[in-house]
Amino acid sequence: MKKITILDIAKELNITFSTVARALNDHPAISAATKKAVRETADRLGYRPNKVASSLRSGKTKIIGVLVPRLDVSFFSSVVHGIEGVMNENGYTILLYQSQESVKQENKGIDTFLRSRVDGIIASISLETEGPGGYEEVKERNIPLAFFDRVPQGLDVPSVTIDDYRGGFMATEHLIKAGYRRIVHINGYRNVHIFNERLRGYLDALTQHGLPIDEDLIVKGDFSLEFGRKCVRDLLAKGTAFDAVFTLEDFTAMGVVQELKAVGKHVPKEVGVVGFANEAFTSLVSPAVSTLDQRTVEMGEEVAQLFLRLLKKGNYYSHKPEKIVLIPKLLVRESSSR
Amino acid sequence: MKKITILDIAKELNITFSTVARALNDHPAISAATKKAVRETADRLGYRPNKVASSLRSGKTKIIGVLVPRLDVSFFSSVVHGIEGVMNENGYTILLYQSQESVKQENKGIDTFLRSRVDGIIASISLETEGPGGYEEVKERNIPLAFFDRVPQGLDVPSVTIDDYRGGFMATEHLIKAGYRRIVHINGYRNVHIFNERLRGYLDALTQHGLPIDEDLIVKGDFSLEFGRKCVRDLLAKGTAFDAVFTLEDFTAMGVVQELKAVGKHVPKEVGVVGFANEAFTSLVSPAVSTLDQRTVEMGEEVAQLFLRLLKKGNYYSHKPEKIVLIPKLLVRESSSR
Repeated sequence: MKKITILDIAKELNITFSTVARALNDHPAISAATKKAVRETADRLGYRPNKVASSLRSGKTKIIGVLVPRLDVSFFSSVVHGIEGVMNENGYTILLYQSQESVKQENKGIDTFLRSRVDGIIASISLETEGPGGYEEVKERNIPLAFFDRVPQGLDVPSVTIDDYRGGFMATEHLIKAGYRRIVHINGYRNVHIFNERLRGYLDALTQHGLPIDEDLIVKGDFSLEFGRKCVRDLLAKGTAFDAVFTLEDFTAMGVVQELKAVGKHVPKEVGVVGFANEAFTSLVSPAVSTLDQRTVEMGEEVAQLFLRLLKKGNYYSHKPEKIVLIPKLLVRESSSR
Repeated sequence: MKKITILDIAKELNITFSTVARALNDHPAISAATKKAVRETADRLGYRPNKVASSLRSGKTKIIGVLVPRLDVSFFSSVVHGIEGVMNENGYTILLYQSQESVKQENKGIDTFLRSRVDGIIASISLETEGPGGYEEVKERNIPLAFFDRVPQGLDVPSVTIDDYRGGFMATEHLIKAGYRRIVHINGYRNVHIFNERLRGYLDALTQHGLPIDEDLIVKGDFSLEFGRKCVRDLLAKGTAFDAVFTLEDFTAMGVVQELKAVGKHVPKEVGVVGFANEAFTSLVSPAVSTLDQRTVEMGEEVAQLFLRLLKKGNYYSHKPEKIVLIPKLLVRESSSR
């Protein structure tokens, strides 16, 4: 069988050799539509590039941009640690960018990575981001893209996530099995997929164990240590009876524990507390706070491996995107052990 | 007085207009020697560039690379927060890179930033870095450079640091004034400037307060929570009498507190403990751990401001470098209050 060359693709599409070559090398001067046509024709004719020559021509930077909301919480810095380990072993360098949970800042980060000619982007979206946002352009330029934990809606892309529904279910079921009955759930006020999933897990666990759903026990707000303290103060002021609190994340849980201690309520004897994320401090404080471990380093390694498989495939957006879901691990500590 | 132009510099040096223009715009094709000659001649003749045109020509990326050892400790992520705040306000974008305390990884980061055409680099060196390392090349290319906290030896560059000697002195003096007499100091085994300064502060505080220096009380190792626990076990096993511990950083202090609690020694009644860095967990644990606050966000803001002043000046390496030293803040908490 005759070896298919770039010239064959050029003849088939009635465009120049140079346009095909640049389209295959993802040159910015070539339109997305032409690139798509070239890739599809290359696939159809069975074109196989000369790997070495192509890598010399392509001017790959071997830099991967990692875009995260923030690095001052254990969750993200720990996932990044996992990503870096695998990527460095494979000869890639990681540049990091923080969106600070702002969609404007996030789009600036995407733009900066594109200008720095990264070979690809691994990201977790900001809390403000709705829809595909600036990632649409990354896809249009055929630059490989993978997400972890927080994935944009309306963009079919590869991702590694945690089963947040299962996490919410596990936390709540654990509290029920430990004998707690009036379980408060503190969630975020924003309409964020992973938040909604944790809430859904909480609700289903209650229902499956025959416990009523009480709207008074579901609190929404901006999560933080201070917000955790405020929730406890508000619940006590309103006279709402409760014997456990499951929070969206650990800082809020820490605030709940601090406020309960401050008003003389014993944790875990009178009130059980479970957080989410396994922040470093949760095992150091006393009582140590029960939480859900999101298998962060593993998540980073998984998304890096997934990304490397994607890079090997080429034609990044013509395959069905790979989606990996990890099951979180319940860590039962003092705050919910009675 | 006649306005000095690029042509005047070119005539003076007997080189082409284009070479001078490219030298002034820091073009990579021009040698460091030529750039130096051009800059010096420009200064001598009193050449003042047309700012707007020069910015259009220079193709500045408005990207600043920030190179830090690691982002999973509060100290660095908090300084970076300060840097980002100031730089974003001034229209710059920050890309981050972690050296993971490895000099090899650090040099790769410098190279990556240079290839990404950053406008400048703000850095804190790895524990392994001795001498100017890869930063020499940044200087040779006349790319602006500023350091915070950990500054390379043998490279005269602008920096913002903490007075580590004062920090060591303050921690030790506080313990002495609280009535502790046999004060252990846990330091790092590496020959790192900031470590040596904290030790020097400890020694001087003892001497100035008329206390003897006991080599048995000075422990060196690789700091970590586990190492803190080990130190206490070793001291107790050897029967070394001590009533206080001042550690190089907070995780070690946390290990010391945990091990003392485990063997039934009361903190602070029997043993006082002071850490260094004000990691987030130190205020959340009980007893809350006394520590030195390194004014991290302020340090980040200071180094960013210093960097902006440097960018305005141009000719980054022809001025005496600005060096700012901040005084740390002693935070007395439960672990040393008796």
